[in-house]
Formats: sequence, structure tokens, C-alpha cells
Amino acid sequence: MIKIIVDTMGGDNGSKATVEAIKNFLKNNDDVQVIAVGRKEELKELEGLCEIVDAPDVVPMTAGALDVLRMKNSSMMVALNLLKQGKGDGVISCGSTGGFLASATITLKMLPGVKRAALVTSFPMQTKGKYLTVCDCGANNENNPEELYQFAWMGQLYSKYVCNIEDPRVYLLSNGGEDEKGSPLVKETNKLFREKNFPNFQGNIEAREAVLDPKVDVVVCDGFNGNIFLKAVEGTAKYMSKLMKEAFLLNLSTKIGYLFAKKGVKGISKQMDYKSVGGALLLGVNGIVVKAHGNSDAYGFESAMKIVKRMAKANILEKIKEGIAQ
Amino acid sequence: MIKIIVDTMGGDNGSKATVEAIKNFLKNNDDVQVIAVGRKEELKELEGLCEIVDAPDVVPMTAGALDVLRMKNSSMMVALNLLKQGKGDGVISCGSTGGFLASATITLKMLPGVKRAALVTSFPMQTKGKYLTVCDCGANNENNPEELYQFAWMGQLYSKYVCNIEDPRVYLLSNGGEDEKGSPLVKETNKLFREKNFPNFQGNIEAREAVLDPKVDVVVCDGFNGNIFLKAVEGTAKYMSKLMKEAFLLNLSTKIGYLFAKKGVKGISKQMDYKSVGGALLLGVNGIVVKAHGNSDAYGFESAMKIVKRMAKANILEKIKEGIAQ
Repeated sequence: MIKIIVDTMGGDNGSKATVEAIKNFLKNNDDVQVIAVGRKEELKELEGLCEIVDAPDVVPMTAGALDVLRMKNSSMMVALNLLKQGKGDGVISCGSTGGFLASATITLKMLPGVKRAALVTSFPMQTKGKYLTVCDCGANNENNPEELYQFAWMGQLYSKYVCNIEDPRVYLLSNGGEDEKGSPLVKETNKLFREKNFPNFQGNIEAREAVLDPKVDVVVCDGFNGNIFLKAVEGTAKYMSKLMKEAFLLNLSTKIGYLFAKKGVKGISKQMDYKSVGGALLLGVNGIVVKAHGNSDAYGFESAMKIVKRMAKANILEKIKEGIAQ
Repeated sequence: MIKIIVDTMGGDNGSKATVEAIKNFLKNNDDVQVIAVGRKEELKELEGLCEIVDAPDVVPMTAGALDVLRMKNSSMMVALNLLKQGKGDGVISCGSTGGFLASATITLKMLPGVKRAALVTSFPMQTKGKYLTVCDCGANNENNPEELYQFAWMGQLYSKYVCNIEDPRVYLLSNGGEDEKGSPLVKETNKLFREKNFPNFQGNIEAREAVLDPKVDVVVCDGFNGNIFLKAVEGTAKYMSKLMKEAFLLNLSTKIGYLFAKKGVKGISKQMDYKSVGGALLLGVNGIVVKAHGNSDAYGFESAMKIVKRMAKANILEKIKEGIAQ
């Protein structure tokens, strides 16, 4: 049976959101067990529902890797060490992103052959059920072609097993669609992909087309560019939603208009909200590691827990090893 | 008197859009003269209004720099050579972007001390009259800190004289707001900006905040990242507008809603449309060079002509030289 280790502390909404998420998740997933790690006194509602491991300390949101590694009794470190000891299949936290990703990498170590871990996420696009996956979306500041080649494997596996896309099409993020365009890194990487004949590699793609073209399943990029791409999309979507809200509040007529149009327009601001996916997956380390958003509510955290389950069911670590060995 | 040299050919809408733009522009700007370059027989409507220089050949949209340089009788090359000979203050074209930028750089040469030319554009944000300037947004594939330092000067001048922002605040595009975060290039560049005490430098900024924070006037980045940022914003804005349209077409009720809300929502898709600025400015070369969008209509092309006028009035080339010498 799949066992998910949950760091219940450290998010913006404290244990309240995570406890509710665990309760809902267990209700809907009777084939999964949970180990809840955190302040025992805050986890009383979970008694009898799942295993509870007491951890008195909470990692602050601003903590870096070294801070986390030093806090041996924090819920984050206790959870990571439980995974390292093989007590579960995956770990999830909504605490400090930098602290969690770095201490997870140091604690769990890399999978054999993997050069760098990558952060992978996806956002809902175009039609319901269709997701755009970005890999790496921010674990690294700098990468080389060999690392990007591995990211493509990892992104493709994510797209296949989290987004349920059968044969995901992979593109390299660039400043133009032609093979000979791009930064020096992209040019070299494109050559490597062509030489090694990466399965279903479709070539380079501009950021605009990556957003608009429904054919794009996976965008591969270094972590710095992935962060810029993802955050530009997020900021613009938020900005447009704000404009829309203001537009409907303009006067009495537009307010009436909203009442009539509500059914159509209400979902728009949720669209493209990559937070609805719940979290991002750190791929390449020796364990399933999901970073839920710091401001996750119960719904978001539950969505992120589902990622752990899917990844564990898909036996993702073995699949990454196989891909890397090819 | 300011004199603008116009390549009237090579855009998606041919000479029709540019001729109309010139007519409108001259009506509203009696302190500017125009030299219209193109097929004489297509410019008959401009007779008596401005100087006409015949150029029989048209550069195709796909032309690269070498193609353009070889087409001595093309309207693009004739226009560039007129500027080189000092026959005008600036040149504008809506033909092939790559071909125009590269042949402009080769023909006009760089301003003394400038390491690389940068493409600068801006898009309307937040409140009307507020613009976000991006420099370099795509002229380069790779840059070093010294080049980015010069881009900051050029971006700031653009923001001041095109966007009318008195003392523009400059940020470095990065994957976090802290000075010590970013790609190796960003980290080095941040250090250089701090050491040299760049006027009104505010530090690093994430793409999300660059879009959302009204304090940001100028975002400095290498051309590759600038392209990804700008195109991600453009794609997302377009995607959201499409969703909105579909939402209003959902059923009879939402259609009625649109009629009531029209006044508010109609302008949204125009917001963030960086095309409404008309074009991008190539800064750093020895001449004012504006690239209007390939699909410019008369209104867009006229907007782009205004950029040439403002830049000439501001004596931008001297100002860049002064900034670079500091």
C-alpha cells in the first residue's frame, strides 16, 4: 500500500489546512496510508485516521537549506528522514521552498546517473484535461545540455503520469522556432536532442507559442528561464483577472452584465492558475518529493497529495532510472 | 526640422497601411518632414505631401541580413543608406525583423563606446499612461554584465523620453528579488550595478512582480530572457482574451451579459498588447531605428512613427553617448 509522509507544518495556513486536506484525502483514497508529521497537539483530529509522528519544531518560511538541516526536530527534517529510512513512498511539504528542495536533495541524494534535480509543474491550458508541463521551472540557476536532456525525460514522465498525456510532445524553450535559433545553451541542446533522437522531440518553441499552441505538452528549459517563463505567465494571468474584475465593477450596467455572464467568466481567473495543480514535483532525487504551495488551502494541498500518489503508483523513480540509462 | 525616413514596403499590409499612416502623421505633425521610400507607383497619394524616393525592390519577410545587404535597390536598404548619408534623423520599417535589425547595425555602425545594440519596447500596464519598458527584448542571444549595464542606460532613456516617466526605476530580471539570487550572469550584473551605483537601480525582480508591481518602470535583461519574458506575457494576455471571448459566447445569458458589460470589458484585450505601442526601438546604433510590427495597420505604424519623432526631439543619440561615457 502506498504511504505518503506529510509535513503538516510550515505553510502559511499552518496545520489547519493540511489536517483538513489529509482527512479529505483519506476519505477519497482508501488505498493510501498517511504519516502525519508535526506538533502532536495540533494533529488531534487525525488520531485513529493515520499514523502521527511528533515533531516539535517548525521551519520558518525564510529558512535556507542549512537552517533546515540543523533543525533535526522540525517536521520538515523528520519527514525527510522518514522517507530516507524507507518508511514511506513520498514526502510532501508546504514549507520554505528553498529550504525544502535543498535539504531534500542533500538528505535523499540523487538517483544514480542523474546530474541535477529539476522542479516540474504544469498548468491547465486550452481545454480541460490538457496540461502544459514546464521542466525545470526553478530548481537550478544554470544548466548544461546534458542536464536539459535529462530534464526532458523527467518532464515527459511527469506529463505522462501526472497529466495523463499518452505520448507527450517535448519542445525546447527558445526565442524562435528554428533549430539554429536560441541562446548558446539552446543551440547546443537542440543539437544533442537531434543527435540522440529524443523521443517525440518537436524542436524549439517561442514562449508565446508555448502558451498558445495546444500541441505543446512539455517545455524544457534551464531553471532560470523556466522561472521567468512560469512567473511571467502567472503574473499576466493575475493581472488580466484583475482588469476583468475592475471592468465588471465599472458601473451599474457592467455589474448587471456580470450577473448575466457569471457562469461563463467565473472560471477564467482559475484557468492558467498553476496553483490549482497543487504543487511542483522535485524529480531526480532518490524519493518522491512534492512541494505544495506555501499558501495552499486544504483543496490545494489535497491536489498536491494526489501527485505523490500518482507518482508512487507509476513507479516513477524506476522509470527515471530506466530513461537516464538509455 | 525633424525628418523621418520611411521604408513604405515589406510589411504584411504593403504600402497601403504605411501610406495612410504617413498621411495621418503629417496632418498631426506639421513640425516633421517625411521621406517616403518605395515603389513610386504605389506612393502616388503622397505626391506633394512629402519627398518620395523610388526603390523598386521589396525585401521579403523571411530575408536575413545578408539578403537585405545584397538588395541595394530595396526600399529597406535605400532608406538605411539615406539615414547613413545624414538625409534624415531616423528610419522606420515594418519589413523583416531579423533582416532590418542586422542590416541597420551593419550599415549605421555602433555609437562610440556601445558594446551591443539592444531592442527596446514597452507595454501599457496597470493604469493608463504607465508603461513597462523591457531592454533588451530580443536583439541578442547572449550578453555579459557590461552590456547589460549599457542596456540599463538605454532602457532608462527610452522610459524617460518615450514613456514620459520622469525618473524611471530600473530592475534586473531574475528568479527572485534578493541580490544574491539569479543566474551567474544576473549575480555578476547585480554586483556591477551596485558597485557603479547605477542611478535609481532598485535591485532584482521576479517576472511575476515585474508584471504586477506598478513601481517597475524598466526591466533589464539579456535578449534571450527578454524575449521569453515578453512573449510569455503576450501569449498569456492573448490566451486570456480568448477565454473571455468564449465565456461571453457560452449561452444566451452570457451574451446578454456582454451587452451590459461591454463598456468595461472591451478594452481589456487591448491592455497589455505591446503592439499598441507600435514598435520597438533599436538603441545603440548610430541612428534612430524603429522596427514597426510586421502586421502594422495605419494606426500602429503611425504610433511607431511617433517614437522616431520623440527620440529625435530628445536628441537620444547624444544622450546615449553621454550615459555610456560616464
